[in-house]
Amino acid sequence: MEFEESGIGEECGVFGCVAAGEWPTQLEVAQIITLGLVALQHRGQESAGIVTSNGSSPPTYTTLKGMGLVSTAFKPEDMLKLRYGNLGIGHTRYSTTGMSELQNCQPFVVDTLHGKIAVAHNGELVNAAALRKKVMRHGVGLSTSSDSELITQLLCLTPPMEEVDNPDWVARIKKLMIETPTAYSLLIMHKDVIYAVRDPYGNRPLSIGRLVPISKLHSSGGGEGDTEGWVVSSESCSFQSIGAKYYREVQPGEIVQISKHGVKSLNVIPRPEGDPPAFCIFEYVYFARPDSIFEGQMVYTVRQRCGRQLAIEAPTDADVVSTVPESATPAALGYAQVSGLPYVEVLCKNRYVGRTFIQPNTRLRQLGVAKKFGALTDNFSGKRVVLIDDSIVRGNTISPIIKLLKEAGATEVHIRVASPPIRFPCYMGINIPTKEELIANKPEFKDIANYIGATSVRYLSVEGLVTAVQSGIELYDKEQISSSSKTSTKLGHCTACLTGKYPVELEW
Amino acid sequence: MEFEESGIGEECGVFGCVAAGEWPTQLEVAQIITLGLVALQHRGQESAGIVTSNGSSPPTYTTLKGMGLVSTAFKPEDMLKLRYGNLGIGHTRYSTTGMSELQNCQPFVVDTLHGKIAVAHNGELVNAAALRKKVMRHGVGLSTSSDSELITQLLCLTPPMEEVDNPDWVARIKKLMIETPTAYSLLIMHKDVIYAVRDPYGNRPLSIGRLVPISKLHSSGGGEGDTEGWVVSSESCSFQSIGAKYYREVQPGEIVQISKHGVKSLNVIPRPEGDPPAFCIFEYVYFARPDSIFEGQMVYTVRQRCGRQLAIEAPTDADVVSTVPESATPAALGYAQVSGLPYVEVLCKNRYVGRTFIQPNTRLRQLGVAKKFGALTDNFSGKRVVLIDDSIVRGNTISPIIKLLKEAGATEVHIRVASPPIRFPCYMGINIPTKEELIANKPEFKDIANYIGATSVRYLSVEGLVTAVQSGIELYDKEQISSSSKTSTKLGHCTACLTGKYPVELEW
Amino acid sequence: MEFEESGIGEECGVFGCVAAGEWPTQLEVAQIITLGLVALQHRGQESAGIVTSNGSSPPTYTTLKGMGLVSTAFKPEDMLKLRYGNLGIGHTRYSTTGMSELQNCQPFVVDTLHGKIAVAHNGELVNAAALRKKVMRHGVGLSTSSDSELITQLLCLTPPMEEVDNPDWVARIKKLMIETPTAYSLLIMHKDVIYAVRDPYGNRPLSIGRLVPISKLHSSGGGEGDTEGWVVSSESCSFQSIGAKYYREVQPGEIVQISKHGVKSLNVIPRPEGDPPAFCIFEYVYFARPDSIFEGQMVYTVRQRCGRQLAIEAPTDADVVSTVPESATPAALGYAQVSGLPYVEVLCKNRYVGRTFIQPNTRLRQLGVAKKFGALTDNFSGKRVVLIDDSIVRGNTISPIIKLLKEAGATEVHIRVASPPIRFPCYMGINIPTKEELIANKPEFKDIANYIGATSVRYLSVEGLVTAVQSGIELYDKEQISSSSKTSTKLGHCTACLTGKYPVELEW
Amino acid sequence: MEFEESGIGEECGVFGCVAAGEWPTQLEVAQIITLGLVALQHRGQESAGIVTSNGSSPPTYTTLKGMGLVSTAFKPEDMLKLRYGNLGIGHTRYSTTGMSELQNCQPFVVDTLHGKIAVAHNGELVNAAALRKKVMRHGVGLSTSSDSELITQLLCLTPPMEEVDNPDWVARIKKLMIETPTAYSLLIMHKDVIYAVRDPYGNRPLSIGRLVPISKLHSSGGGEGDTEGWVVSSESCSFQSIGAKYYREVQPGEIVQISKHGVKSLNVIPRPEGDPPAFCIFEYVYFARPDSIFEGQMVYTVRQRCGRQLAIEAPTDADVVSTVPESATPAALGYAQVSGLPYVEVLCKNRYVGRTFIQPNTRLRQLGVAKKFGALTDNFSGKRVVLIDDSIVRGNTISPIIKLLKEAGATEVHIRVASPPIRFPCYMGINIPTKEELIANKPEFKDIANYIGATSVRYLSVEGLVTAVQSGIELYDKEQISSSSKTSTKLGHCTACLTGKYPVELEW
Repeated sequence: MEFEESGIGEECGVFGCVAAGEWPTQLEVAQIITLGLVALQHRGQESAGIVTSNGSSPPTYTTLKGMGLVSTAFKPEDMLKLRYGNLGIGHTRYSTTGMSELQNCQPFVVDTLHGKIAVAHNGELVNAAALRKKVMRHGVGLSTSSDSELITQLLCLTPPMEEVDNPDWVARIKKLMIETPTAYSLLIMHKDVIYAVRDPYGNRPLSIGRLVPISKLHSSGGGEGDTEGWVVSSESCSFQSIGAKYYREVQPGEIVQISKHGVKSLNVIPRPEGDPPAFCIFEYVYFARPDSIFEGQMVYTVRQRCGRQLAIEAPTDADVVSTVPESATPAALGYAQVSGLPYVEVLCKNRYVGRTFIQPNTRLRQLGVAKKFGALTDNFSGKRVVLIDDSIVRGNTISPIIKLLKEAGATEVHIRVASPPIRFPCYMGINIPTKEELIANKPEFKDIANYIGATSVRYLSVEGLVTAVQSGIELYDKEQISSSSKTSTKLGHCTACLTGKYPVELEW
Repeated sequence: MEFEESGIGEECGVFGCVAAGEWPTQLEVAQIITLGLVALQHRGQESAGIVTSNGSSPPTYTTLKGMGLVSTAFKPEDMLKLRYGNLGIGHTRYSTTGMSELQNCQPFVVDTLHGKIAVAHNGELVNAAALRKKVMRHGVGLSTSSDSELITQLLCLTPPMEEVDNPDWVARIKKLMIETPTAYSLLIMHKDVIYAVRDPYGNRPLSIGRLVPISKLHSSGGGEGDTEGWVVSSESCSFQSIGAKYYREVQPGEIVQISKHGVKSLNVIPRPEGDPPAFCIFEYVYFARPDSIFEGQMVYTVRQRCGRQLAIEAPTDADVVSTVPESATPAALGYAQVSGLPYVEVLCKNRYVGRTFIQPNTRLRQLGVAKKFGALTDNFSGKRVVLIDDSIVRGNTISPIIKLLKEAGATEVHIRVASPPIRFPCYMGINIPTKEELIANKPEFKDIANYIGATSVRYLSVEGLVTAVQSGIELYDKEQISSSSKTSTKLGHCTACLTGKYPVELEW
Repeated sequence: MEFEESGIGEECGVFGCVAAGEWPTQLEVAQIITLGLVALQHRGQESAGIVTSNGSSPPTYTTLKGMGLVSTAFKPEDMLKLRYGNLGIGHTRYSTTGMSELQNCQPFVVDTLHGKIAVAHNGELVNAAALRKKVMRHGVGLSTSSDSELITQLLCLTPPMEEVDNPDWVARIKKLMIETPTAYSLLIMHKDVIYAVRDPYGNRPLSIGRLVPISKLHSSGGGEGDTEGWVVSSESCSFQSIGAKYYREVQPGEIVQISKHGVKSLNVIPRPEGDPPAFCIFEYVYFARPDSIFEGQMVYTVRQRCGRQLAIEAPTDADVVSTVPESATPAALGYAQVSGLPYVEVLCKNRYVGRTFIQPNTRLRQLGVAKKFGALTDNFSGKRVVLIDDSIVRGNTISPIIKLLKEAGATEVHIRVASPPIRFPCYMGINIPTKEELIANKPEFKDIANYIGATSVRYLSVEGLVTAVQSGIELYDKEQISSSSKTSTKLGHCTACLTGKYPVELEW
Repeated sequence: MEFEESGIGEECGVFGCVAAGEWPTQLEVAQIITLGLVALQHRGQESAGIVTSNGSSPPTYTTLKGMGLVSTAFKPEDMLKLRYGNLGIGHTRYSTTGMSELQNCQPFVVDTLHGKIAVAHNGELVNAAALRKKVMRHGVGLSTSSDSELITQLLCLTPPMEEVDNPDWVARIKKLMIETPTAYSLLIMHKDVIYAVRDPYGNRPLSIGRLVPISKLHSSGGGEGDTEGWVVSSESCSFQSIGAKYYREVQPGEIVQISKHGVKSLNVIPRPEGDPPAFCIFEYVYFARPDSIFEGQMVYTVRQRCGRQLAIEAPTDADVVSTVPESATPAALGYAQVSGLPYVEVLCKNRYVGRTFIQPNTRLRQLGVAKKFGALTDNFSGKRVVLIDDSIVRGNTISPIIKLLKEAGATEVHIRVASPPIRFPCYMGINIPTKEELIANKPEFKDIANYIGATSVRYLSVEGLVTAVQSGIELYDKEQISSSSKTSTKLGHCTACLTGKYPVELEW
């Protein structure tokens, strides 16, 4: 809801699970994937899908897909069909276009000479159009517009499939990664193995977790001998809700094989000489759940640092600091700490507003977003308010909130945005409105303030954001990356939507 | 319901419509296809789908699919999405396997170098396994187990697609028809044209109709100038419910192009020298709606002839003749005419029985099929009954009916089946139980009678059936086929399930 | 569907079941009621309800209600809630008004000083308005517009309830029956007993059946020792589908108590001196299922007699006789027997037509009812057809059928109606259109023929209908009524909608 | 969800709306009621209902009811039926028993001699059992177990209804209020008037708001001339989301008439001499939305005062203060202010967890409530945490949270509860577990701490709570109550669940 209104949206979440040890296993693989997807639900609410494999030879695959939230898409009676899975992958989808159809629902499964493979994908191939043409020229009809099908057919296409016993899927994955530089985090399931793949720029996130007995979940010891299974997820926030411990991230360009025997790094496809990694900085700012960990740091903490940095860059003469609930709260608390202004709550959110049908052309339409917020007037009436938001895209959410606060007695409402203005489109998997819709393309802050009715508007600088993000990584870098991966330890994030500098040159 | 119980089932129905004249048209193409599919609903109740095209360049395709009956699958609000279609094809599916999933729902649509094509298919490719392997060896992953996807990918595969303006789809269709001899009736939509294709053996039916103004529907004049559009359907029974006049059948091996400019025969792929056509004789016996027309004759009339022939071949010393409602009624009336016995109704069918949930292990389970029939005892109590059925597959439907009649007072119940015993599997698109389940594989009629509790059992002979079917065609043959088609006028029907003689040699 | 189109409709069906012998019982009472209601589904498709009681002291009642057909209204998981019932009553409702709401769904259950009672009702109280006023004047607010609630509150109202152990429900029922003469068949459940009640005029039907072991269902012996339970139903057609034997009808004015100890006649409330019974003659003509038994005769047989009588009263110079499927078939066969004309089928009904959404203002609308019938042209083309219908109400169903037959080649279409013209409203529970809509209120047969496009139109006479109905009863009368009931054995049927002579004087 | 887990629950919310000025009105009355109910959704999620009246003479009532959340219960197409309403009342229900059935859905509507009345009710009649018996002895069968029906029938019962033009409903309401002292807030709609009634003890809340043009919503001027309509609601939080201004509360014992002519106080039924008012103190502590206003003060502010008082009564030697999101946040912020400890967030809530199906007996079950919270470890790892909760009922929610925090690194977890222990059942409309389940019935705080795994547990005192609540009222009292109402200005709140002192003597 919020995402739709603010106008930017994530492309999806992926989640996989492999039971360790002897199969058939008692581990409730399909249930774990389902709960994992629920924990990734903020990355996509349009549809959800799961494919499980029993891992035998030949394997039996079972597929379950549905429209809507995970809880709607998977009915209990259908879940039972998946119960014999020993491994599986799942996907939760964000609808970037109007094509909200079950057939676009992932994972995508096809039959090949070597049996079925299933693919789940988060991201967007920057050269998708050229690749589609290539595939179709080869004589393949594409049944969807999704990159997942494209990836799947590319994996099958060349070299010609031979009737051998053990197809070299890894060679095919490498070939794919060379053909398309970014942006993708992939889960590819074949028979009894999941390949977890992150593009060479590491644009989309992917983390690995270890399932342990619930009783040992929080003991710091817990050797690998206790491992009940492995999970792999777009975000580590999903690990807690299924009883998994954070293990590590898949590195940019890495192909990781996950099987009942454990986790094995197979290969790291390098970036062109000199290119830094380009993890999407908006995962920190906006998309990810605050309890997720990227590059060794908790998203909540980064957001708090953004708020602190913002207080330094854009101090305000005001009485109280507050937040647009709930995502801007860490930044608001950070701003309050540095500014010394008291943190108060000014808005109370009605959780139940949502899909209620409102007739067009009624007075109720005019109330707009105010319908979902109640003003906590005692906390700000007669006061000057600094309101922290995490980002402003079109301005159509913040504008009625400012109106609401002013009318309920705020004498001034200063908007402080804990991220820089979004000015450019994304081609790596994030849905951003057109230039015309982007409020940040107004000439001056003054114009934006006028447009949304604020007393003043200020943003965090790009440098400030990069500092807030990268200052927490350095420590992590020294301790972990250098040992666990062969990639360059150079720091780097994709800030294309803020700066127009894309990680790779775009083909048109 | 009946089909499921009796154990044989059709593979599907296809229906297409093209608006004539200038586009955009006022013709409600999607509604016509929907009603056309409703009229073909007896050919498949598992799922339904429609794809429409506005026919412009490039065209916009709109797809609607759903599980269940047409009336369930297509919601009014979804139908509205299809309303700008100027042409379209639809499909209603019979579930031959347990895979009752939306993704198997047809038509199958893929994007190609030359834009989207949509394929709807009735039948089963006899060499599907070999063709699948060929396609996959080429590097194509197949996302379903359906022949429709296979056909689509075969059409795309060779020769390599070139970026020309007008791809030669007809050449590709011809190539496909040479690669697979039978069994298929296909509708292939590309941009502004529907290709209607029937395999060289003509195993599955396909008829063309002409949409005229409702006011001129039944006037015998009605020149082609009045044509509002063209329809093509598995069975002509659908024409009446949409206001179309019967035009002609697609001939075995024929490729017909249907566009806003009219109907044009493009090609007839011949059969191997000496091979007769092989239209499925069970379409007459069982599958088709009685008001459909095949080979110039009404199905009802053929069934009545079967009943007459049966009365000659298997006379009975009895008091009354009756039917298992509703499909055996024409045969029963035919039997009554020749035998001179009075025709009466003995069973009253409860239309509402169906999906009511019955707990297992209750006394109600024991009642079986009797739950859906009421005995009209006054009509047969104390009498000897000849009960006509159109076919007996496993015997599990007829057996409790005989019990019901006897217990309600029939002194004798003689079963007369208006078709020969089914003894062999079908590989051309009909779902037939295994040999073990087929009651006709019992050694003698006496054994069958004992098994089902009948006083006696007799079947129509294969020769009798062929005569009943072909005696009506001859007249038609002289008048029409010779002029409208270049195929041999040799008569021939597929009787493989009765005789084990398949129209083509089967590869394994 | 048909009922709605033809414009007359039944008010409902009631069904009750009591397990015999020791409780808790193994008899699947709720399932039996469900199947019983399915067999009465033709009497009402709007909603369905069941109330079961475990019969203990105090009893636990369980209620299940839902909109739509029985199979839709009762979900398997809900059915399980009813499984401990030892007795219960159910209801299937026909929507006479636009108020299609769950709250009007029956049975109606209320809590009283003596515990809960449940009431299911078929019919309409002729003096409902006065009784409602009386109840409301007493200070009762009525939560529905249904007669069932009215009946329930009347039963509670007077005499004042006293806190005794055994309330005299029978006295209250008698009082109710004296207050309202007709029309009702009632099932009243209290704790461990069902009272089956039929109004003194016997206007609505009610029959009792005996549940026997399935194995003894059709043995003519089968003493009462084998009784597994008792059922009571609007129509006996429901008995076969649950494995019950027909026992007897509840007599006009009779109060029958059904308990685990058996069936006991408690009382017969007499009619005013000289008044004949008034069983609705349209149950024979139209409403009832052909395999139901009323007054000792099968409905099918009465309809066949109507057809024979019609052939005598209204002979036709024609070539073939046929039916509007399916309800007029017995009359058509009867007409054929007497007239000597051959019986043929002219229409093939598409079972799947129904709820398909058709956009307004399209050419498809013009096709009307023809969408649901296919013409079997070979059977009547070039011939003069006598088409038998069971009744014609507004003419909007028959008219397009006649058009269809003529356009498909019938040279003449003579309509012969196996019942007299409907000219008057019913106040006893049947939904009949207003006078303006009734086609029979046109001045002459010629006008009706013109209106519907028939070559000629003739109806059965009232005398003919009464003869056809009553000629089968006499035998029955002598044998059974005289012994099992104290009511006058005078014959009599309600023909008010045909003659305007109502069984009781109407208050306004 | 939370409510169910914590084990106490509100009984319902009521909402009414009357369009001012000339009827038919353009005001979207039904939509306003719907949104009003959405804003009261936290008071009940089981079912929802709306009844509108066009207010003409006789009026047309339209009813809409459904199970589940308001957004589920009312479908857009159904909402259209209500669109001609000029006034209406609605209800959202909390399921206190297992009887989650549509028939218990309110408002309750009955037909009386004077036309229909509709009743919506929040609360529970303390003498319901005696009143039910009285009504049934009068001869009324009660179709539900709800107090709403009971109230409705009591209103109809005495004095006898007379056929006069203007029934004296107010006299009947007064009679009802004398018969039952508490607890109820009622909306009674008759024709063109809504009576808003609060019991003499004022146990349940009820507030009135004024609808103004959206443009004038926040102007402080806005005279009554601009009034577009009137609304009445269990809580004033609903006013903002529909564009209404807070007007005033209905006073304890007051009967207010709301019509198109405005708001009129008709009567105030006094309490017995010496009895203070008894507004439920748990509305402040727990049930109400923080932006609602009771007795002139905002609930949020009261909760903050509770937190401050708690910091005084139960100081803690710790490092950080936090909250169990989201309801305890104001108390936590209050505690932080007084204690001087920093306020941090320790838990991140997954909004999407909820109805996901989990197979029984799996490792996932063991994870319990942790599935819905993510630990923000950076904020508390290695620290001593004071965790504020608003109330602890059974301890089964807080216990796994404490475990989660400890395992994620908190060195100590001190629970501070911003309300006193719940020890007694409520008979005024709140659902409280049995004594055995109430954790507060453990002998000592130490035992509770052990039971839930906390380092220490302390509660707010009853005196502390009363002070926190009443200290804000005094100002209000002087300004408003004295002028707008004739009730005693004595302060008083129901603390029965904390102290066992009930506002009225309970009859058994």
